[in-house]
Amino acid sequence: MVQNLAIGKIAILLASLTEDELKQIKLPLEKFSYCQGRVGSMNMQKVISAVETAAKRNALINEGYYRETHSLYHAIMEGINGVTRGQAAIGEMSRTVGLRFAVVRGKPYDHPEEGEWIAVAFYGTIGAPVKGSEHETVGLGINHI
Amino acid sequence: MVQNLAIGKIAILLASLTEDELKQIKLPLEKFSYCQGRVGSMNMQKVISAVETAAKRNALINEGYYRETHSLYHAIMEGINGVTRGQAAIGEMSRTVGLRFAVVRGKPYDHPEEGEWIAVAFYGTIGAPVKGSEHETVGLGINHI
Amino acid sequence: MVQNLAIGKIAILLASLTEDELKQIKLPLEKFSYCQGRVGSMNMQKVISAVETAAKRNALINEGYYRETHSLYHAIMEGINGVTRGQAAIGEMSRTVGLRFAVVRGKPYDHPEEGEWIAVAFYGTIGAPVKGSEHETVGLGINHI
Amino acid sequence: MVQNLAIGKIAILLASLTEDELKQIKLPLEKFSYCQGRVGSMNMQKVISAVETAAKRNALINEGYYRETHSLYHAIMEGINGVTRGQAAIGEMSRTVGLRFAVVRGKPYDHPEEGEWIAVAFYGTIGAPVKGSEHETVGLGINHI
Amino acid sequence: MVQNLAIGKIAILLASLTEDELKQIKLPLEKFSYCQGRVGSMNMQKVISAVETAAKRNALINEGYYRETHSLYHAIMEGINGVTRGQAAIGEMSRTVGLRFAVVRGKPYDHPEEGEWIAVAFYGTIGAPVKGSEHETVGLGINHI
Amino acid sequence: MVQNLAIGKIAILLASLTEDELKQIKLPLEKFSYCQGRVGSMNMQKVISAVETAAKRNALINEGYYRETHSLYHAIMEGINGVTRGQAAIGEMSRTVGLRFAVVRGKPYDHPEEGEWIAVAFYGTIGAPVKGSEHETVGLGINHI
Ligand SMILES: [Mg+2]
Ligand SMILES: [Mg+2]
Ligand SMILES: [Mg+2]
Ligand SMILES: [Mg+2]
Ligand SMILES: [Mg+2]
Ligand SMILES: [Mg+2]
Repeated sequence: MVQNLAIGKIAILLASLTEDELKQIKLPLEKFSYCQGRVGSMNMQKVISAVETAAKRNALINEGYYRETHSLYHAIMEGINGVTRGQAAIGEMSRTVGLRFAVVRGKPYDHPEEGEWIAVAFYGTIGAPVKGSEHETVGLGINHI
Repeated sequence: MVQNLAIGKIAILLASLTEDELKQIKLPLEKFSYCQGRVGSMNMQKVISAVETAAKRNALINEGYYRETHSLYHAIMEGINGVTRGQAAIGEMSRTVGLRFAVVRGKPYDHPEEGEWIAVAFYGTIGAPVKGSEHETVGLGINHI
Repeated sequence: MVQNLAIGKIAILLASLTEDELKQIKLPLEKFSYCQGRVGSMNMQKVISAVETAAKRNALINEGYYRETHSLYHAIMEGINGVTRGQAAIGEMSRTVGLRFAVVRGKPYDHPEEGEWIAVAFYGTIGAPVKGSEHETVGLGINHI
Repeated sequence: MVQNLAIGKIAILLASLTEDELKQIKLPLEKFSYCQGRVGSMNMQKVISAVETAAKRNALINEGYYRETHSLYHAIMEGINGVTRGQAAIGEMSRTVGLRFAVVRGKPYDHPEEGEWIAVAFYGTIGAPVKGSEHETVGLGINHI
Repeated sequence: MVQNLAIGKIAILLASLTEDELKQIKLPLEKFSYCQGRVGSMNMQKVISAVETAAKRNALINEGYYRETHSLYHAIMEGINGVTRGQAAIGEMSRTVGLRFAVVRGKPYDHPEEGEWIAVAFYGTIGAPVKGSEHETVGLGINHI
Repeated sequence: MVQNLAIGKIAILLASLTEDELKQIKLPLEKFSYCQGRVGSMNMQKVISAVETAAKRNALINEGYYRETHSLYHAIMEGINGVTRGQAAIGEMSRTVGLRFAVVRGKPYDHPEEGEWIAVAFYGTIGAPVKGSEHETVGLGINHI
């Protein structure tokens, strides 16, 4: 059951590092499927939808099966809990987010029976809907898929 | 009000990268005060206390003033919300954490009047109190100080 | 203070069993007032309103008194907490519900001074706004009235 | 993706109906693996542990794989959110629970690729640690496994 | 249904004003039953228990009936939500409270059918378990009884 | 670190007492900056915005600096947690608020290094969007600024 590939750390780095920085660190990206994206909104539905759409478009989940949609959805919501820290709401609380995100899918555990897992990471800003009135925020959700 | 130094990203990288990886990425560490630490526990009090103790020992906060303790406490709790994703509890929910953390203090904003801010980042694992029965977790809290 | 009539169980069965199944189990329905209804929505206000309207239309609460509205409201919200499991939101979190509900009012406790109580139960599905992308969900709220 | 076997409803009925009542309703129990149990405690860890132990003892999950433990854990916590309605805590909030529970595993969806799912249902009482000072409570968690 | 006696405001003032200040403001205390108390603890059970004990000792609730215990319990928990602002926990989050509280029972509404209501108010400090490292906090819960 | 001026109590009294009542109690208002306001809405954004606008208009915060906006925002959200008791939402949960609020800024602690703090208090009613179907509610948030 030993985990030797840090799927969550990879997702966090894909979401928070610049392209240049990513080149400087050796990540075992060839062992995973992944995608990256961006979303800015006061509307949590749009954030969820941006991640779901990117994951589907990049064939990270098979949208024909609810099983996979379900796994991704809960990983997204866990990540959003990190972003929002205490109450999973954005616009209702008068705040807006500008986020980069990454979805990573693969086998982080040694034992083949542990199967595939999915990680969703967010990095960006959260704050008032006024430019500059914001600070950084991070979130990570992980689920078996 | 433009933020040009990503205090939260630095905290996340200090908590999640290995020493080797940290050398590969250029981080403006000289512009901040920071410390790193580790804590493993089923007890959230111990996690909070580990961060507070490290921050005080490294003179990141002046423990003589409640003002600074207060700022750090809320940053820690925000970070723990990311780690626990939905309910800020560990042992009560039969889970244990093994975390590396970083506390970073400095001036992330251009404008000098924005003053100092503090970031608390966690990276590690959360799961059942059984070796290997865990997945990664991340949290970041940021506050003005 | 012994409770000998399970008002909550009756509500759950009224919400989740089919008419045929309900006939197969003997429930002491004659000892309670109750109503059943259905609601499907991404909007939590509509779910709350559907239950309140059904309860008023069936004279389960006297809408002239805030006291009774208040009791029902908190019972509904407790039931919704079971349905949503962790965050009382639906559409904001990109999910939709299709629910059957039941409201039951009566005296579940032996002692006459324990007076009347109200139970609100939900049973149905929660999931993405895509047919089939959903799983079951249940909630029960109970309050003195 | 049509769900034709209500795994959650079966779990709720297994947790809430008496043996006699269960005989009166035809449930497709032969299509699922399941177990039933009881737990009474002010300690949420004991509730979680009672369900995990019962599930393992009855071979509902393969405890050798974290994947399955993870799926069960999140289903338990979702069910506990229904039981506690708003704050997943018991003793810390001066309340105690007396619960019957059921764990059901199987294939609720038509399409074979939807695979196996797990449902955890609770039914019982929650209240002050004084006999009779309690009312009913219900919770259901569902996860892909 | 017009409320002409502010039971909640009276509770807040009883919890937060000094004896001298209370004499300066005319409060319609003769129209209500009430009690006042103090509790300091890192343990939420002790806070709940202090209020319940004071309410019973002063005959504000009839402890023979769960109905009344239930109403008081939910009012206390609502008040504690104000005190803890976001997560109903104290010691688990490394904080301690020093609170004065008041319980007020009576008929705040004009219409006699609105019956009796109960208000539980807290005022005091919350903070680190270090003298002076604390700030003020307030909470109010109201329920029909 | 001794706090000798109760900034939170002053805020609560400014929000809940009538003008006449305020005259009867001696409050050290000359030592603080403060403002009062009113807001009624089903929309939490409007509540937040009403407090922010009043605080800016009365020069209680310098809106040019995110630092101050950030401090005020978190104080407001803490206060709203008291008002909503468990879930920081209003309209989404079919409830409406009618609130008076006060923002107080100053130095509540003896030691000059403790600097300035801000308190946001709410007092009013919460309930169904039907006149009279509401009860009182209170909230207080405090932050260093
Ligand atoms: Mg997990
Ligand atoms: Mg913030
Ligand atoms: Mg209750
Ligand atoms: Mg689900
Ligand atoms: Mg209420
Ligand atoms: Mg604080």
